[in-house]
Amino acid sequence: MNKLIELTRKKKKLVIGLMSGTSLDAVDVALVEIEGNGKNTKLTLKGFLEYPFPPEIREIILRNSTPPTSSVDEICKLNFVIPQIYAKAIEELCRNLRCSLKEIDLIGSHGQTIQHLPNDEKWGEYKTSSTLQIGDPSVLAKLTGVVTVGDFRPADIALGGQGAPLVPYFDYLIFGSPDKNRALLNIGGISNITILKKNATQDEIIACDTGPGNMLIDAAAKKFFGINYDPDGTIAAKGQFDEDLFNALVIKDNFIEAPPPKSTGREYYGLEFLESCFEEFADVPPENWLNTLTHFTAYAVYRNYEKFIKPKIVLDELFVSGGGLKNKFLLLKLREFFEGVEIEDIETIGVSSDAKEAICFAVLANETIAGNPSNIPKATGAKAPTILGKICLP
Amino acid sequence: MNKLIELTRKKKKLVIGLMSGTSLDAVDVALVEIEGNGKNTKLTLKGFLEYPFPPEIREIILRNSTPPTSSVDEICKLNFVIPQIYAKAIEELCRNLRCSLKEIDLIGSHGQTIQHLPNDEKWGEYKTSSTLQIGDPSVLAKLTGVVTVGDFRPADIALGGQGAPLVPYFDYLIFGSPDKNRALLNIGGISNITILKKNATQDEIIACDTGPGNMLIDAAAKKFFGINYDPDGTIAAKGQFDEDLFNALVIKDNFIEAPPPKSTGREYYGLEFLESCFEEFADVPPENWLNTLTHFTAYAVYRNYEKFIKPKIVLDELFVSGGGLKNKFLLLKLREFFEGVEIEDIETIGVSSDAKEAICFAVLANETIAGNPSNIPKATGAKAPTILGKICLP
Repeated sequence: MNKLIELTRKKKKLVIGLMSGTSLDAVDVALVEIEGNGKNTKLTLKGFLEYPFPPEIREIILRNSTPPTSSVDEICKLNFVIPQIYAKAIEELCRNLRCSLKEIDLIGSHGQTIQHLPNDEKWGEYKTSSTLQIGDPSVLAKLTGVVTVGDFRPADIALGGQGAPLVPYFDYLIFGSPDKNRALLNIGGISNITILKKNATQDEIIACDTGPGNMLIDAAAKKFFGINYDPDGTIAAKGQFDEDLFNALVIKDNFIEAPPPKSTGREYYGLEFLESCFEEFADVPPENWLNTLTHFTAYAVYRNYEKFIKPKIVLDELFVSGGGLKNKFLLLKLREFFEGVEIEDIETIGVSSDAKEAICFAVLANETIAGNPSNIPKATGAKAPTILGKICLP
Repeated sequence: MNKLIELTRKKKKLVIGLMSGTSLDAVDVALVEIEGNGKNTKLTLKGFLEYPFPPEIREIILRNSTPPTSSVDEICKLNFVIPQIYAKAIEELCRNLRCSLKEIDLIGSHGQTIQHLPNDEKWGEYKTSSTLQIGDPSVLAKLTGVVTVGDFRPADIALGGQGAPLVPYFDYLIFGSPDKNRALLNIGGISNITILKKNATQDEIIACDTGPGNMLIDAAAKKFFGINYDPDGTIAAKGQFDEDLFNALVIKDNFIEAPPPKSTGREYYGLEFLESCFEEFADVPPENWLNTLTHFTAYAVYRNYEKFIKPKIVLDELFVSGGGLKNKFLLLKLREFFEGVEIEDIETIGVSSDAKEAICFAVLANETIAGNPSNIPKATGAKAPTILGKICLP
């Protein structure tokens, strides 16, 4: 406890941020030096690592993310196995940086989402809106000997929010511009966008998930080509756009046109989303599938902008992060849709795209320790700003 | 965060303790005034309530406690529904006591165990020993506006322990005697015992689960009579002891004879434990079944004492708490087995039997806030004492 009190008073901290997304390729670990907190936060990225998920554990996580194949005993075990993987990832990063675990002040860990049901209804009088991140932060604190803050989303859902997106507060702290209307787009399994108009205050931030990120493209790459993703978007680039398929996807979708606050996940954009179309459009060549899904993914981002943002804020620039940045064809499509808006890699404003989400959770942990709320009610729909996460002592 | 720092400095606190056991009848809520911490802890019970579980939620919890009928979406939802039930229980207790939620300083919440696998093996290089308590403490903190400490068991398992029993540290703080060798026996679904020899230091505590509590008796009451338990043990008292059945149970069991540290749960003493015997002993009359299972339950407690404790410490007195205290036939059997040891209701040494476990988790939360470790490595098998729980800010 004294350790925690000391920590709240320390001006510069070495903080580990940990993110493992729904795509399940790797655990992202960043080591960041953080000075101050809130709008006075100053960041220096010391190092970053993508630590691949052991394939056998990845399989177990996947089957426990879907109701029919999930099982309480495996979920119970995963909750303790995942922190062991996180601890190894942290140790490897520290080794690479010749830094001792003892020098680390704090860990911020997102956890592994295996279910996200923010819009669920009721069981009798009880609200069932919920989200489930596993990878127990108390276990991680004990394995590493470092104060750990984890499980950021439940607090926001408890206040009526979606529990997502949580990146907007981080975007607001780090990326606000005095003279440009700026958007930050992260393309992971799901895409989310943060709109920061010039000189935005916390109340003026707009943010939401926009729909699929790499998730649909990856699912089709797997189905048609047996590969985990379309490398650089080269297969999509060789294909043709199929207007009928595109229109069918637009009609099928009921997330893109829904007004923010909103968030989504594998529960909605999983294989089931595509399955009926696979049948109906069985004669569409595989590369046309990838072309059209990539087009649809870019469209989903743009359509959210066009419908919900552009009437109020016309963007000057949009900075992209996440795995989707590697898909050149997806970027090309985004540039076509967002004509007149400058689209760049987020690295151009000083943050590594790959590391962004991991850095975000280091910063959110620092905010929790500082006692600062870090959800954005307008983005999540929560009724108030609130301090996120659970604090676990080593 | 300042609220948390103030809390660590407050001499007297009003603390809510919450326990919902595997029997799933009710949420136990105690309001306790706690002064000091560690061996200087002083307790005053202000009030206690058993808040019945809504039957439909009880059913959902039960089916999600067993692998074949469990499902990640329901577990996700339960994790948010249970804190809503806890919050109602707390509100009702406060109403009864004419106390405002705003006066409460701290909540300690055990959570609802839906899986306890402390002896599990490995997935490749990863240890799968684990336990799963749901009823998210961060959600509870937000719903009540009170700092909440929850999830006490994972930290101990992370250090190689069983995550159970956790009551021994509480027993040590509150019940140590200068001149008697004393045991505390709690009979819930499972039974656990704490042995405090006169003037025991923390290192000298012996404690473990001893085997079934009410679990087997209740299962048979349900099967044969369609009732949730044998009221006061009256059915068992009318039956006859069946030696063949008893011997079959002793042979079947492989927990009682295992040396401490050890813990068990519904995973082992569930219906499956009895099922093969139900077939083999189909001709044993139902009341004889209850008689023999009650006998077996008392035997399990005594056999642990006889084998692992008596050679080192001969008890003077044994104080019983938990639902099993209401089973007069079970107490009779315990008195027969423990000839020469005084057996009494724990109320005789100043703590309400019904409230004991709930009070325990109020005290454990207070210890966490004070920065005191509260597992007993000799009881759980953990490699070191450690601070338990996750701290959640309102």
